[in-house]
Amino acid sequence: MKIAVDAMGGDFGHCVLLDGAIQAARKWEVEIFLVGDQDLINLELGNHNLQGLKIYVKHAPEVIEMDESASAFRKKRGSSIRVATELVKRGEADAVISAGNTGAAMASAKILLGSLKGVERPAIATILPTIKGIALLLDAGANVDCKPHHLFQFAVMGSIYSKDILGIENPKVGLLNIGEEESKGNVLTKETFKRLKNGGLNFIGNVEGKDLYSGKVDVVVCDGFTGNIALKISESVAEMISKYFQQEIPKKFLWKLGYLMMKPCFKNFKKMVDYDEYGGAPLLGINGVCIICHGRSGAKAIKNAIRVTTDFIQRKVNNHIQKSLTLS
Amino acid sequence: MKIAVDAMGGDFGHCVLLDGAIQAARKWEVEIFLVGDQDLINLELGNHNLQGLKIYVKHAPEVIEMDESASAFRKKRGSSIRVATELVKRGEADAVISAGNTGAAMASAKILLGSLKGVERPAIATILPTIKGIALLLDAGANVDCKPHHLFQFAVMGSIYSKDILGIENPKVGLLNIGEEESKGNVLTKETFKRLKNGGLNFIGNVEGKDLYSGKVDVVVCDGFTGNIALKISESVAEMISKYFQQEIPKKFLWKLGYLMMKPCFKNFKKMVDYDEYGGAPLLGINGVCIICHGRSGAKAIKNAIRVTTDFIQRKVNNHIQKSLTLS
Repeated sequence: MKIAVDAMGGDFGHCVLLDGAIQAARKWEVEIFLVGDQDLINLELGNHNLQGLKIYVKHAPEVIEMDESASAFRKKRGSSIRVATELVKRGEADAVISAGNTGAAMASAKILLGSLKGVERPAIATILPTIKGIALLLDAGANVDCKPHHLFQFAVMGSIYSKDILGIENPKVGLLNIGEEESKGNVLTKETFKRLKNGGLNFIGNVEGKDLYSGKVDVVVCDGFTGNIALKISESVAEMISKYFQQEIPKKFLWKLGYLMMKPCFKNFKKMVDYDEYGGAPLLGINGVCIICHGRSGAKAIKNAIRVTTDFIQRKVNNHIQKSLTLS
Repeated sequence: MKIAVDAMGGDFGHCVLLDGAIQAARKWEVEIFLVGDQDLINLELGNHNLQGLKIYVKHAPEVIEMDESASAFRKKRGSSIRVATELVKRGEADAVISAGNTGAAMASAKILLGSLKGVERPAIATILPTIKGIALLLDAGANVDCKPHHLFQFAVMGSIYSKDILGIENPKVGLLNIGEEESKGNVLTKETFKRLKNGGLNFIGNVEGKDLYSGKVDVVVCDGFTGNIALKISESVAEMISKYFQQEIPKKFLWKLGYLMMKPCFKNFKKMVDYDEYGGAPLLGINGVCIICHGRSGAKAIKNAIRVTTDFIQRKVNNHIQKSLTLS
């Protein structure tokens, strides 16, 4: 199995990404293409023991920066994300992983690889930590304006991923909405509800924002605008809470002492909501495998993303998606 | 000034609502109609010293339960929220306050009182606690499917409320979106951006979910579907965090001890995000005054909602909205 890693994306620089990729190559015996500036990559590889590992460097002279528009991938034909995706297109790699510009990674995959037969709109599926374990939310931002049948397809793809990769038998699907009753919501959710009700999935109905982290459902379906807002707000609230404590705790000696005693408890929480544990979000429905990692991914996130990618390929997620959606 | 309080709405029963109303009547010398089951209300009033207070009971034999559809207000002509709103319609009261079924309260106000001249869609404006103070978000759920000019009107109404009631001179307005650049977003936000850019407000551009609680803007504008999801997810994240600590802290003696030391710090946080402090969300654009309180409102929330209501009337918010929107 060969995986192309965009070695230039991400907020923490190429060393962190390389570190994660090398750890994965050692652990799961996958072959890795590190795609990016070959001088930089080779320099850093010199600091690692690569004996027995199948790690190759593929030169890409350009980088799409985090703040560039997604369309930059068209002009920057030598950008690391584009070169990595082209490896998949030509069949030289089985999958591409990037922690760089999400828009550019999606655009590259959608345009260069195309969609699976039967899939109208590929969607980003993100893991949510819940009180009971984890859930999957899609679409997390690939499609800002959706139709009901797009959301239905997201539900099908999410159910398959949840079963194949997360090991959830008969995953419960919920439609993100502003009320539980069938009559609630906007035009899109009302129509989608009807479609899901008779769609052959384990659809349990509408779920509200308050159910997102309660573990009530395994797959949360929404359009990419709502999904993206939902995820960013979740980060925002967690950050506000964290900032509040950072500001307040130093104000009193007793609070500082209390915090020190509770530190492992705070740390466990941080681990629970840590992106790095879940290893990236697949762009489901692509004719190929594309895993998008958070810009703030550390080495562990990249390593975990590579593990998820190998599962994705071995468990034939794409075959299952194509089969379901060409039948439905 | 006369305020009609729906005495039957809310999760905690009529005693809590009466308590808040009585405190307000004592503090700000407002006249209060308590609308609901007169026997229940009179029984509870017997437990209070009402000397010098102008508190009247207005009988309403029916209640719209929290889980009923908004349209229940049509059939239940004797429901407390409807009777309270009718007092405003007939000019017997200046404002209505309810902590009951939000949909029914909105529907009553929209249909019985109608909109101000120039206002196409009334919107619920909710206070958000931020790291720097507070911000206003609208629409929080009154309009699930919106057009760009609706969102523009929300921005105008929110700016006026922010200035008149929250005392913010030249409030900064942001459009809730999935990226900061003008080109980002769905059809609705892209069109709204253009409208806001030349709208004469202090529009600072798109804001993302992560900016909601950062204090970057004073007024956050979005459609009611997105706004409602945003608010409920915020609650959900805060609840998940709180549940996590409730579950974990008892597991270790040291954590329990640390928590006890930090308790005031946790309590201050709770106060910061407490609905009760902010006293309800106005339905802006109504031809009258309608303040909607959270179902979980305590006596303090009702008292504060009455204070906000008196400010709303005295500072002529509705005059300012009508003037702005008939001119624009």
